[in-house]
Amino acid sequence: MREHVRKLKGKLDKRGLDAFLVTQNIRYLAGTTAGKAVIIPIDAAPVIICSRLELEQARRESWIRDIRAFSSWRAPLRRGERVYFSRPWQLIADCLKELGARAVGYDRAGRELIRKLWGANPANYRELPDLMLELRMIKSKEEVALLQKSARIAMRGMSCAAESIALGRTELEIVAEVEYEMRKAGSDGTPFNTIVASGRNSWLPHAAATQKRLRRGELIVVDLGATCMGYASDLTRTFALAPTGRQVKLVETVKRAQKAALARVRGGVGARGVDGAAREVISRAGYAKFCPHGTGHGIGLDTHEPPSLAPDSKDALREGMVLTVEPGVYVPRLSGARWEDMVLVTRGGYKLLTKFPLGVHPCLDT
Amino acid sequence: MREHVRKLKGKLDKRGLDAFLVTQNIRYLAGTTAGKAVIIPIDAAPVIICSRLELEQARRESWIRDIRAFSSWRAPLRRGERVYFSRPWQLIADCLKELGARAVGYDRAGRELIRKLWGANPANYRELPDLMLELRMIKSKEEVALLQKSARIAMRGMSCAAESIALGRTELEIVAEVEYEMRKAGSDGTPFNTIVASGRNSWLPHAAATQKRLRRGELIVVDLGATCMGYASDLTRTFALAPTGRQVKLVETVKRAQKAALARVRGGVGARGVDGAAREVISRAGYAKFCPHGTGHGIGLDTHEPPSLAPDSKDALREGMVLTVEPGVYVPRLSGARWEDMVLVTRGGYKLLTKFPLGVHPCLDT
Repeated sequence: MREHVRKLKGKLDKRGLDAFLVTQNIRYLAGTTAGKAVIIPIDAAPVIICSRLELEQARRESWIRDIRAFSSWRAPLRRGERVYFSRPWQLIADCLKELGARAVGYDRAGRELIRKLWGANPANYRELPDLMLELRMIKSKEEVALLQKSARIAMRGMSCAAESIALGRTELEIVAEVEYEMRKAGSDGTPFNTIVASGRNSWLPHAAATQKRLRRGELIVVDLGATCMGYASDLTRTFALAPTGRQVKLVETVKRAQKAALARVRGGVGARGVDGAAREVISRAGYAKFCPHGTGHGIGLDTHEPPSLAPDSKDALREGMVLTVEPGVYVPRLSGARWEDMVLVTRGGYKLLTKFPLGVHPCLDT
Repeated sequence: MREHVRKLKGKLDKRGLDAFLVTQNIRYLAGTTAGKAVIIPIDAAPVIICSRLELEQARRESWIRDIRAFSSWRAPLRRGERVYFSRPWQLIADCLKELGARAVGYDRAGRELIRKLWGANPANYRELPDLMLELRMIKSKEEVALLQKSARIAMRGMSCAAESIALGRTELEIVAEVEYEMRKAGSDGTPFNTIVASGRNSWLPHAAATQKRLRRGELIVVDLGATCMGYASDLTRTFALAPTGRQVKLVETVKRAQKAALARVRGGVGARGVDGAAREVISRAGYAKFCPHGTGHGIGLDTHEPPSLAPDSKDALREGMVLTVEPGVYVPRLSGARWEDMVLVTRGGYKLLTKFPLGVHPCLDT
């Protein structure tokens, strides 16, 4: 995280900013979830602003030592406890004033907050959400290790899904088993709502699991993730229960599309071309109309981060990015199918962070 | 949800607004999670703005019929599929223009989005996040039924925690069991990270569960919730493994503080007074310095909603609000303890939505 702050300071210099205020990227810079805001001055130590009730947690978790706690009301304090009896925005404003910050960037904030800050410390406030997202695109070794760990837990979740899928079980039952398995394997929590989408739910890319039972002649899309120290994983497989020939063709198409996209992945190439390679396979198979989303996305502390693998993407892949590659095709009344893995982009290609199946799973024999 | 839109329209009229744009309260108004924005014109039908990939989901889930899908790139469409090849903000701007909206409220948005909307449709844009939160404070019968269902699942989760807590087990193991139980009972997901905080973790109000094992002489704070159609529940109990006398006193204090607060709850009273009643019990027991958070909060589609039960609260309780009442005391090197239930505020008092223990749980015999 110190490293992340160092990198951010480099960016501030180029943009002529004295300080940066984050409310969305606290964990990335401070290594704790306990803060309400972090202020990074260009030539002084960073400051965490947190609620009194999270002060001790911030102290335990963060490497940042200047932690200022607020309480919205006056209350007796413990010996040695230092708390500002003020509103969070006041504490932020006071801190910016103390730093003499004249040009302040921020990642995201309501107009109201900025209006108040301006009232207390009239500076040039600039909303620059992309600045942090750009930094976060390239993962450090430590981040890659956490993403790998998170991916391994997702693989265990997927094994559990493969073992749990059976005629007559409900989508929610499979979700319960999968999340239980991942929690036992050390996941901090599910980074997005686990998807088990069968039959008519399978052609909704963002289906929520329901009480619907699994039936013959259905594909089942399982899209799951774990979290390790905040770092998400994201893995999708499409299973089948006595599928029809057309359903088998569908699954084979997304698998081939993924292969074609992966073959293009390496540092320096355009994200658009990777998406194009998958889209071409899908078009040639006659599914061009049924391909409503991009082929993948960056992943890290958020499940969806830049870069975007899509026809309108302007991003270029760079060494050290971690991406999902996940073409999907959704044909109403036939089925949906998606196949997703996580990769680390290297200079010459990529390293696969997810592998599945590990053994043989009969329901993958589509 | 139609009812929610009707209520919102009443508020718009009073504020002189032609339309309201929501990006944060989509489920509340539209009954789906599939939208990116909803526009509520004062004298026309509401409009959902969603991504092409969520179009069918929005159609299945929402009562709103005017659903406009965007795709950031040109692509072949299915027969009958209507999609705007534009950016979401363009679609929002076009829709506001078509409506001739001159005074537009919104719940929350970045400056950048508002700048773009203004460029395309120069109107008076006003950030009014409180307007939606005020509406949401009073729950309809349907909302109370969902909150009650969600609370019942939380009670099952807590029974599971009581059965799972044992010497030598880790906090994360207990979390895995509890979440599994709630998922099997039909929870849509966990509305916040389930807390199982033992020993030195118990005095962090927002502790994350860890690999730490449960030991003798420790209190264990379990704070969990389920979700039903988006509606959250929130329930806390403090368990003990061979506690010391001082630890027992701590738990008894928070239980008495909760009782004192509950005795004040009814339509028309100030939220501040309810908090004060709990705080007084805690102060008299000598723990005034160890009580860093308010005594409760509204709950609904978000775990934390207005009103706030705290010393600086200006809210008044009203019939139809659903609240948590959860005094907590956190004494470093002794333990933390918190006791939380959900109540529906009635004219003459309250109805308890959570009850626990249902049977006898030995570890609650503190």
